[in-house]
Amino acid sequence: MADKVLIYSRFPKAMMKRIGERYDLIDAGGKPPLETFSRDELKDVRALITAGGQALKSDVMDMMPALGAIVCYGTGYDGVDFKAAAERKIVVGNSPGANAASVADLALTLMLAVTRRLLPADQYLREGGWSSAKPSPLMSPQPGNPGRKVGVYGMGEIGRKIASRVAAFECDVAYTNRTKYDDLPYRHEPSLEALVEWCDVLMIAVRAGAETHHIIDAAMLKKLGPNGVVVNISRGSVIDQAALTAALVDKTIAGAGLDVFEKEPHAPDALTALPNVVLTPHVGGHTLDSHMAMQDCVIANLDAFYAGNGLPHAVAV
Amino acid sequence: MADKVLIYSRFPKAMMKRIGERYDLIDAGGKPPLETFSRDELKDVRALITAGGQALKSDVMDMMPALGAIVCYGTGYDGVDFKAAAERKIVVGNSPGANAASVADLALTLMLAVTRRLLPADQYLREGGWSSAKPSPLMSPQPGNPGRKVGVYGMGEIGRKIASRVAAFECDVAYTNRTKYDDLPYRHEPSLEALVEWCDVLMIAVRAGAETHHIIDAAMLKKLGPNGVVVNISRGSVIDQAALTAALVDKTIAGAGLDVFEKEPHAPDALTALPNVVLTPHVGGHTLDSHMAMQDCVIANLDAFYAGNGLPHAVAV
Repeated sequence: MADKVLIYSRFPKAMMKRIGERYDLIDAGGKPPLETFSRDELKDVRALITAGGQALKSDVMDMMPALGAIVCYGTGYDGVDFKAAAERKIVVGNSPGANAASVADLALTLMLAVTRRLLPADQYLREGGWSSAKPSPLMSPQPGNPGRKVGVYGMGEIGRKIASRVAAFECDVAYTNRTKYDDLPYRHEPSLEALVEWCDVLMIAVRAGAETHHIIDAAMLKKLGPNGVVVNISRGSVIDQAALTAALVDKTIAGAGLDVFEKEPHAPDALTALPNVVLTPHVGGHTLDSHMAMQDCVIANLDAFYAGNGLPHAVAV
Repeated sequence: MADKVLIYSRFPKAMMKRIGERYDLIDAGGKPPLETFSRDELKDVRALITAGGQALKSDVMDMMPALGAIVCYGTGYDGVDFKAAAERKIVVGNSPGANAASVADLALTLMLAVTRRLLPADQYLREGGWSSAKPSPLMSPQPGNPGRKVGVYGMGEIGRKIASRVAAFECDVAYTNRTKYDDLPYRHEPSLEALVEWCDVLMIAVRAGAETHHIIDAAMLKKLGPNGVVVNISRGSVIDQAALTAALVDKTIAGAGLDVFEKEPHAPDALTALPNVVLTPHVGGHTLDSHMAMQDCVIANLDAFYAGNGLPHAVAV
């Protein structure tokens, strides 16, 4: 009989198909497992798969007394209470780098769409404005990419792939990161403040956590300035979303491209009503090859765990 | 008194400001000059500025018997009748390469937006579909960029900048062009047919003219196939637009990103109604730096012409 694995987050079934061929998946669908399953059904669950960003604290762990492995589908693991996991000798794994190209590509898609005003341009044609010579929403030309100052906040695998793509557009690239990498051809700024003062486009690729919570606040957005654009493909918690919305409304900054939000799946009306934003429903890692690579990591972690070995893609904390 | 220059095409006034500081601009606004001006007013016009794509034949040239220079604003010059110009000893200039980065950047913007289904994604959030857990239009994941086969048709300055940008996304790049360049790191395909058979995304960056008219027809689109995407930032005439629309409707190909159309400013309803296209109103060269560089070329051409010298940016035909 296949080993039982709990699906903790809400994943489309198709995404779990490959893993379901090897394990007996029981699906809590994003709700507390005890809402769907009895204590008896949960008592022999030794591993679970989570989206990483969803809160997973001691109360949930205690629903599954045999739990030994938390396997995150994707790079993030900010929802997991590591202290509680360690106390219960639960190991935590993720899918490092598996989605980096896919997420970086979406970051560029958002940057280009916002700076080239793609949505108003497309709408101008669809609504017949161009044919009928109505005033164009694109009338005044905007700065192009060559020489554009793009700041990358966080230089992990995703940040590196963002930087190399941005550089191909003849932009000027700088970054800030706890570690300064001498092998990278980009200028290192000593702080987020310094990076934001310098750049026109801020690409947020930092790992989410307590120390980055709302680090992009009203003061930081004011530093970014009226030509500034924020792109966030990391986690919604990094930005004070109410402050961002206000900054977009009163033109403190020029625009934003957002794949992530404070309370998913929910983007407030105040944000979705704005013309100077481009929004996507947390699909940074949502490409075929990215899913295959993330599933490879999940399967490798589960296989190793059930074989009694350490996780090949363990989160070191 | 400043020399008189006719503005032949429809350009926003702001775009002509710098040139207007040096020359006495008279604006025909895209219509036959004799509709706006008398023969007397036109008799001493020695130079004109045109958009390049607009038809400019002997009848128009004959409205200005003193005409000696046709200066194209931008790279293209496909609307100009070169034989008629040569017979009248009229020289033709353009702005080679001035808008290459800007146009290439829009090509990438369109490719990324189509392949990541950016418009349905944004709409899903704006219409509240995500918040209310309605089925996502992005449900089934699509191939990502790494390993994607991108074919560049035309390897001039724009094609080269498209290729270097596409390569940064870890795509596999090939091209076809009259000349095979041994200094380029991309595979050369001997024909457009071979390129189209091979690629998933076809980037059209070829110069428009009689030999490329409707070269992308129904048969070529069938070769591109059901996963294929067409991006056109060159000229609308290169594609048989009715065949493209039919191919998009019946899923012969997957999608298209179009900045140019057969009859501008007009994108037919059959095209603007489609969900699998991203459309922009011929704004490839529409960035601040691109306009400045194109104006530099126009001014250099006009200054040289009025000084009795050859054009520094002459079109060699």
